[in-house]
Amino acid sequence: MSDSTFPFLGIDIGGTKISVCLGTSEGKILDRERFPTNPAHGPDPACDKIANVASLLLERNPDCQKIAGVGVSAPGPLSSRAGHFINPPNMPTWHGFSIVQALESRLGHPVRLMNDANASALAEWRFGAGKGAETLVFFTMSTGMGAGLIIGGRLHEGPDDMAGEVGHLPVSPDGPVGFSRRGSLEGFCSGPGLAQLAVLKLTQAIHTEEDSKLFHLGKDYRLVNAEDVGAAAVNGDRIARDVFREVGEKLGMFSSWIVDVLNPDIIVVGTIGRIHADLILPPAREEINRACHPASASRVRLVPAKLEAETGDLAAICAALEPSEKQQ
Amino acid sequence: MSDSTFPFLGIDIGGTKISVCLGTSEGKILDRERFPTNPAHGPDPACDKIANVASLLLERNPDCQKIAGVGVSAPGPLSSRAGHFINPPNMPTWHGFSIVQALESRLGHPVRLMNDANASALAEWRFGAGKGAETLVFFTMSTGMGAGLIIGGRLHEGPDDMAGEVGHLPVSPDGPVGFSRRGSLEGFCSGPGLAQLAVLKLTQAIHTEEDSKLFHLGKDYRLVNAEDVGAAAVNGDRIARDVFREVGEKLGMFSSWIVDVLNPDIIVVGTIGRIHADLILPPAREEINRACHPASASRVRLVPAKLEAETGDLAAICAALEPSEKQQ
Repeated sequence: MSDSTFPFLGIDIGGTKISVCLGTSEGKILDRERFPTNPAHGPDPACDKIANVASLLLERNPDCQKIAGVGVSAPGPLSSRAGHFINPPNMPTWHGFSIVQALESRLGHPVRLMNDANASALAEWRFGAGKGAETLVFFTMSTGMGAGLIIGGRLHEGPDDMAGEVGHLPVSPDGPVGFSRRGSLEGFCSGPGLAQLAVLKLTQAIHTEEDSKLFHLGKDYRLVNAEDVGAAAVNGDRIARDVFREVGEKLGMFSSWIVDVLNPDIIVVGTIGRIHADLILPPAREEINRACHPASASRVRLVPAKLEAETGDLAAICAALEPSEKQQ
Repeated sequence: MSDSTFPFLGIDIGGTKISVCLGTSEGKILDRERFPTNPAHGPDPACDKIANVASLLLERNPDCQKIAGVGVSAPGPLSSRAGHFINPPNMPTWHGFSIVQALESRLGHPVRLMNDANASALAEWRFGAGKGAETLVFFTMSTGMGAGLIIGGRLHEGPDDMAGEVGHLPVSPDGPVGFSRRGSLEGFCSGPGLAQLAVLKLTQAIHTEEDSKLFHLGKDYRLVNAEDVGAAAVNGDRIARDVFREVGEKLGMFSSWIVDVLNPDIIVVGTIGRIHADLILPPAREEINRACHPASASRVRLVPAKLEAETGDLAAICAALEPSEKQQ
């Protein structure tokens, strides 16, 4: 039996789109289809569509006679053990929806549901920057800021799937707002947070009459986004670079706590940390070296994520590969 | 074969005394002997004495024909994998000493070395307040402040035995000194830290002309110790109670971070938190409820340690029960 004969079905659910894929346990994506989530229509039509797409994928891949397992990677909060959603912020109609039951009845296979930060941590650990690590911390650093933890070679989800839900923790008494809290980790280390921090610095620059490329984008400077700030920083803009330095310092400060608590081998930083690794990771490393125990600081490697566009599909495949911890 | 026929040998090494015991895998201590560590004499005489005492214990317990395993619980920093000490603060002559090799050659048995915070966490998890928990955090809260982590039903030591080495992490920009850092967790949440905090508050009280029982102990108030502050607090002294409230708040603040990172079932607080649970744990619980995600806050129980004088012996027995992670 070759690996591609019995692939896994991965379902990556997001607030705007759903991706369904066939992939192998070695991390090869064989085929995929994407379609809009349409949260306004509720979860049932989406589950029908997922089942239809799964059939389509199996039909057009005749080598894949059947699937070995099904994994779902989805935004939290959710209960991986009970198999349902708990008020996902961008998908209010999915609140309380028993996605595992809905998909198991449609697909005829056991389904493993997993929080997307945890599933992405597994993907980087199995197939990306963290291969072979014993203890790995993965930071999403994208629209939001969450962590996934691999501890002693095993995913740690926690009894309520809340392990790694660190976005609201305070890293500064003041600063941008994330997770409804001013000065939180997500307030600094996320796309919207980074943009807010830029606006705060630009507002100060008006008073000190310092110029910035971000004043000349042809739009109100208060509407700059993370991409704008990234482009300006790459072009040497002082204020934009200052934003990334401060984001890196806050990432490093929080990382230093987690390094001293867990003594990890590696910290893998997702999307923004991957795209702007040169700007963000050096100040973060400095902070870790300054604040941590030397033994823990010299152990840990702080690296950008390796997986790119495929992360979501591989995360869902990784969910399928994990043993279930369903409630009895 | 009854459990007592093949007991475990537990060796609890501290800066002032060493305890050698025979105990069962069910946590029953069958016999023990204690003697001074005499760090000035170096580790070799101590290891000879340990071997002699082990023979003595087996002789006077004829039911115990042989031992099933040997565990050593000792102060860090140490390498459980390499089996040696790394500069233990109160035992400088033991720096670099290969305790595992020294004891294996004398005892003729494999020896498992473990950091005492980790071994004590195992003891509370197997035999104390944390029985049956999936994820447990144990705080030593004694002369020093360290943590031991049981994650998903397994001890997490980290590759350098540095997991849980949290005493130096900052919980305040100012305050008492612990682990050479002002405002650190150990600065507040340890015996010496608590005493320092009392002295800081008493110095303020002199300026505000507030009286305290701690001024009337028949010694310079700058020499109060944690026991003095505890006794005064139990007797209703406002300043002493204020010290414990602040210590509890700082314990809760740090716990809230670890709760949001790990989503644990239980946090078990050692010595000072056990003796003064009524003073310390309520403000700590309030802080957790205020700062944490509601799902994680409502999950976690914050409780005093259950084991008392036997902790060290049971910790050493627990080290013997753990699989070895020796370096190849």
